[in-house]
Amino acid sequence: MRMYDIIEKKKQGGALSKEEIAFFVKGYTNGEIPDYQASALCMAICLKGMNDEETAELTFAIRDSGKKPDFSGIKSLRADKHSTGGVGDKTSLVICPIVASLGVTVAKMSGRGLGHTGGTVDKLEAIPGFRTDLDTETFCAIAEKTGLVIAGQSAELAPADKKLYALRDVTATVDSLPLIASSIMSKKLAADDDCIVLDVKTGSGAFMKSKEESEQLARVMVQIGKRAGKKMSALVTDMDVPLGNAIGNALEVREALEVLKGQGPEDLKELCFALSGEILVLAQKARDRAEGIVLAKEAVRSGKALEKFKEMVRAQGGDASVAEEPEKLAVSSLKHPVCAPEDGFISAVDAAGYGKAALLLGAGRNCKEDAIDLGAGILLIKKTGDAVKRGEPIAVLCGAREDRLFAAEKQLLESTVFSAKAPPKRELILAHLT
Amino acid sequence: MRMYDIIEKKKQGGALSKEEIAFFVKGYTNGEIPDYQASALCMAICLKGMNDEETAELTFAIRDSGKKPDFSGIKSLRADKHSTGGVGDKTSLVICPIVASLGVTVAKMSGRGLGHTGGTVDKLEAIPGFRTDLDTETFCAIAEKTGLVIAGQSAELAPADKKLYALRDVTATVDSLPLIASSIMSKKLAADDDCIVLDVKTGSGAFMKSKEESEQLARVMVQIGKRAGKKMSALVTDMDVPLGNAIGNALEVREALEVLKGQGPEDLKELCFALSGEILVLAQKARDRAEGIVLAKEAVRSGKALEKFKEMVRAQGGDASVAEEPEKLAVSSLKHPVCAPEDGFISAVDAAGYGKAALLLGAGRNCKEDAIDLGAGILLIKKTGDAVKRGEPIAVLCGAREDRLFAAEKQLLESTVFSAKAPPKRELILAHLT
Repeated sequence: MRMYDIIEKKKQGGALSKEEIAFFVKGYTNGEIPDYQASALCMAICLKGMNDEETAELTFAIRDSGKKPDFSGIKSLRADKHSTGGVGDKTSLVICPIVASLGVTVAKMSGRGLGHTGGTVDKLEAIPGFRTDLDTETFCAIAEKTGLVIAGQSAELAPADKKLYALRDVTATVDSLPLIASSIMSKKLAADDDCIVLDVKTGSGAFMKSKEESEQLARVMVQIGKRAGKKMSALVTDMDVPLGNAIGNALEVREALEVLKGQGPEDLKELCFALSGEILVLAQKARDRAEGIVLAKEAVRSGKALEKFKEMVRAQGGDASVAEEPEKLAVSSLKHPVCAPEDGFISAVDAAGYGKAALLLGAGRNCKEDAIDLGAGILLIKKTGDAVKRGEPIAVLCGAREDRLFAAEKQLLESTVFSAKAPPKRELILAHLT
Repeated sequence: MRMYDIIEKKKQGGALSKEEIAFFVKGYTNGEIPDYQASALCMAICLKGMNDEETAELTFAIRDSGKKPDFSGIKSLRADKHSTGGVGDKTSLVICPIVASLGVTVAKMSGRGLGHTGGTVDKLEAIPGFRTDLDTETFCAIAEKTGLVIAGQSAELAPADKKLYALRDVTATVDSLPLIASSIMSKKLAADDDCIVLDVKTGSGAFMKSKEESEQLARVMVQIGKRAGKKMSALVTDMDVPLGNAIGNALEVREALEVLKGQGPEDLKELCFALSGEILVLAQKARDRAEGIVLAKEAVRSGKALEKFKEMVRAQGGDASVAEEPEKLAVSSLKHPVCAPEDGFISAVDAAGYGKAALLLGAGRNCKEDAIDLGAGILLIKKTGDAVKRGEPIAVLCGAREDRLFAAEKQLLESTVFSAKAPPKRELILAHLT
């Protein structure tokens, strides 16, 4: 088998066989196939696509490039939830404790964020003492004992994905549906959970801008998981507006704690309960979504979910008193209100623009090596649909760098559309795929 | 400017600017742009194409990657002829002396062949003593003195093409019209001739199999040359049948000498006179093609063309007596006739298959490092349209390696179609573009 022929076949629009895909992934991972052939193939895939079977085989080959963690000590069903990434998305911090408190084990390996704010592990590091760099043994041991652990991805998890993604990132071959789907699902399948719920974001703040593309991505990922024998479901959810009111790492943990205490913004609560409900159905803890949502809400009302969160924090070396004293989640002391320039309504916001403003404040990374300011971020006071008066604060910027405040304020205002009339109400959950 | 954005733009089907193309070619040639980005761009070009302007700018950027020879001492118009490569194509050996004998300077840099037989410089090396590795000064001096010189390409001629072609060759990105056209034309333009006549082959023995593709390639190359201020014309000619009767280096020089003496096969003569006529029109030695052809035939009849050939051979250190004593062009002594298996007609041949048979005999190279057996090849006795009797020889194989004879014979017979009825007569010159 020759890599040349594999590239040529895909260039002609042919479907690659399981063997050809495995040959490519194995050869590229071990260095026998050079970058320049891999990038030519990735470009051909971008422009000629892959059918469902090819996409699944690519996912499986990437999944099998590393070692799987050993969860043989865990008897309950294990579940994971994956979001394709949005602004203000802290749902994992709420959902994982909810379902874990109901007997579904969550042993989550999560990446660090690149972009507007950190990823789930970055956010958790805002909790004093919290450790996310667990070795595989510790990771499995905590999962077995508490039923809930969230840590950084081990280097052994699907290493082919890291190498391929780094190449795609510099060759303009990131935005290909089969390559995106296989990258996400290879890591999810490598973690070997029984149930996987996907939250595919759509809109200005998401990777996929249109609902159709997002549904297509959700459909492809669900079919990959099913081919691997997993219980799968996916929601397509709105990301034209940031989720909740907090953007930034410490701020988002504070907001997640509010939800776990039964408070917090409505949109965030709605999505957390919906996704928790999905997991509970797949993990056979609820007969249907409605029952799942009721169970999730009850886990919050009773305090069981918050207790599970604290249990995880303690097990991972963190200070669990943050649950009662959220001020221990340090937020930058420099605060700057952004005010409405006119009377009327916020009729639309560009969530990606809000993300950029948070990035300017130091809440995210431009490149892998950048340090995050965990205390930086934005608190939204008004969101899409809200009435505003001229001069009234619509958001508060928090950051350590005064020199960035002006640029962040400008970015935020440019990303906000004001109008005289209230905009029509938007749906948060746009599609449901199983 | 970032290479990433250039790749992304082409992936989306956009047209690259002159500046973007120059940035890519310059950066790739000097090593600032890595292979993996260049191969991704080449694949995007293969699948999204390039318009005429982009193709021309790519050609110019590649042309400008090296040094141009200095022909300031030459006062007459300079012309070149380029063939896209076919089986048995020895026209350069005939045309260049014809037009040079009529006052058009030909200072030709030619590549070595990869495939069925050698290139023009390989063929000339079948002449005892003939040197093709001339330094630029010697090359220009001979051109100035005799008006005719044919040598190997200098390493300084369009080096970007060498690097790009080597990459395309291993990433399945060779068969793209804009990439093919720019590769050919960059070298032609780097040699900086005033008039360029292209012979674009079409059919089984050519790179382009269909007449439409070949016309398209011819059209694109003609427009590139015109944009560079050159006088251009192109013929699209048949390569479903080998040209002339000789395939192989020494054999082809012998056949070229026959034509220069007014003999030789009709198809070869027809094409040599037609291409010579084209050059003479562009170089303002003839008012029209008909007059150009008359002048070319007269240059042969009078012996002026043969004399010019001998002058070149002497100037390049070769033994000019081969013109009168062609047996000095050594042909392998091992000779094997291939006989017709039935009575009837040869109704079709696969010229590429005949080329493969010649390659098996040692007449060509599989890779750049291979040595050529200059004495190996095939003499065709019968071609398409000829009547044959069972057992009658249709070709004679010549080669030094007895162990390859059987495979070559098999290849040749498999590439020949016999039928009871004579096939319709074929045109040799299929299109004419200016």
